[in-house]
Amino acid sequence: MRIVVPAGGIGGARFLRGLQRELGVDPDSTGEEPAITVIGNTGDDITLFGLRICPDLDTVMYTLGGGINEEQGWGRAGESFTVKEELAAYGMQPTWFGLGDRDTATHIVRSQMMAAGYPLSAVTEALCDRWRPGVRLLPMTDDRVETHVIVDDESGGRRAIHFQEWWIRHRAALPAHRIVGVGAEEAAPAPGVLEAIEEADAVLLPPSNPVVSIGSVLSVPGVREALERATVVGVSPIIGGAAVRGMADACLKAIGVQTTAQAVAEHYGPELLDGWLVDPADEGTAVEDVAVRSLPLYMSGPEATAAIARAALDLAAELKERRG
Amino acid sequence: MRIVVPAGGIGGARFLRGLQRELGVDPDSTGEEPAITVIGNTGDDITLFGLRICPDLDTVMYTLGGGINEEQGWGRAGESFTVKEELAAYGMQPTWFGLGDRDTATHIVRSQMMAAGYPLSAVTEALCDRWRPGVRLLPMTDDRVETHVIVDDESGGRRAIHFQEWWIRHRAALPAHRIVGVGAEEAAPAPGVLEAIEEADAVLLPPSNPVVSIGSVLSVPGVREALERATVVGVSPIIGGAAVRGMADACLKAIGVQTTAQAVAEHYGPELLDGWLVDPADEGTAVEDVAVRSLPLYMSGPEATAAIARAALDLAAELKERRG
Repeated sequence: MRIVVPAGGIGGARFLRGLQRELGVDPDSTGEEPAITVIGNTGDDITLFGLRICPDLDTVMYTLGGGINEEQGWGRAGESFTVKEELAAYGMQPTWFGLGDRDTATHIVRSQMMAAGYPLSAVTEALCDRWRPGVRLLPMTDDRVETHVIVDDESGGRRAIHFQEWWIRHRAALPAHRIVGVGAEEAAPAPGVLEAIEEADAVLLPPSNPVVSIGSVLSVPGVREALERATVVGVSPIIGGAAVRGMADACLKAIGVQTTAQAVAEHYGPELLDGWLVDPADEGTAVEDVAVRSLPLYMSGPEATAAIARAALDLAAELKERRG
Repeated sequence: MRIVVPAGGIGGARFLRGLQRELGVDPDSTGEEPAITVIGNTGDDITLFGLRICPDLDTVMYTLGGGINEEQGWGRAGESFTVKEELAAYGMQPTWFGLGDRDTATHIVRSQMMAAGYPLSAVTEALCDRWRPGVRLLPMTDDRVETHVIVDDESGGRRAIHFQEWWIRHRAALPAHRIVGVGAEEAAPAPGVLEAIEEADAVLLPPSNPVVSIGSVLSVPGVREALERATVVGVSPIIGGAAVRGMADACLKAIGVQTTAQAVAEHYGPELLDGWLVDPADEGTAVEDVAVRSLPLYMSGPEATAAIARAALDLAAELKERRG
């Protein structure tokens, strides 16, 4: 069984861990081709202090590889912040990015490999040699795509800031007029992305941010079209009119989509979505040509998350069979 | 009084601290033009993990700026090694370089400024804005000069390795056939270097390594010629036939110079040297046209080091007056 999961950071990584549990994947096992291919969002990527930082890829890699800070959901366990403090002592900007020492080593390895000419996909594979996440982790593209947010500037005009600045520094509190994937139109899917989708028995959309995570993956030319031909089951990131993890509502608002399981499903649309899992709180959700099922969607622990993954797999299998 | 000090790492930095003490320089003072210009060796510089590392400039900056690890004489006080350990966990080579976390931030700032097009001299000035070393710290050159050491390879031939690899990894124990300053012939002195020498009342050579520290500074075209016109007093790095700090003898051997105060003075030569301070253990030292004085040269503490600096200043003043 071959499964493809387009994923952002924390929500995607936790869903993937539940999926692995459900499938009995031993992340440390070697030899076998992983059954799960993750298409990681790279729109959050940013270059700071000359270091190329890929927050979502790293969150997936650390979470599945056993290196994540479990409590906060991103960054390394046992992290220290000496480099960050020293950079601040030199007056280096920005100071709002949580650059940990352990994390810094990952960025140094990545930056050095990229400077040597390796594409991000090859770099990601090399980093995963250490972490053995038990999935094939592909960046959505080897090209540079960066999510920028259009906000008001002080002079009454508008300016674009990097998503990370909006998200971390301003905690998504600056009103966003638009969210733009800079470079997306000219980007190509990373090697293996389209092939993995074409060969997939099921594509599962985890409860990642529908705008800046899944939406970013969908913005790479060719990806949406490939997904429209696949059997796709999504897990609603909205429960009872609120984002499961904070601030996704600010992104939805920026693109004019309501913060409801219904609106997100309509935003993805029936061309993309075949099935949609909602929480019992959203049981009335109905989208034409999309099979909706309801079950508890809080990823409160490994068991609960595995059950969500199971439901997504079951619905995908049912829909695939129905399609013939 | 304007003083120029070509300097390597530990020996140079400690001598400079004694000199500042003698001159009553308050490193934290601002406003006044520093009386001391240091011409720092950059031949030890190396790029590792994509980071530009300048060990000698940093040792001077940290020592005079109050950030040095006093016991080992290089690196930052209170240093940690998380980044280094993580790089090793990724299988990154080399693992023999002592890359501390605090130090890493310095290298990140430097590398980013250099990538943005700033010359090393401007970068060094920016780093010193934080450290306020109380001297004007100039790199010997803004061009890339790297000291390489010619050693035997396994196949019976010879190969060149970076000085740092020879010095740190092999602890200078691999026989060195030659020591080469790659890029030195095409290098130009950094802005201010020649002017500082020309305007100097005295040039003091600290007990830095005569081959890979002072020798490296001398290898930059124009520097030796300028120094030959100045009043130069050197402090012997050799006491009683042994290097004050280990392994300088291996460098002297590579260039065919004996490990004696006499031989080092002859190696510098009377065109360069006007005065030469030796330890009482080397009282017989005599070089034509060089004024030799003897006094205890162990830099055992601030007082002893200040006394050495005083003696060097006094001898320079005496020689300058004699010259007319």
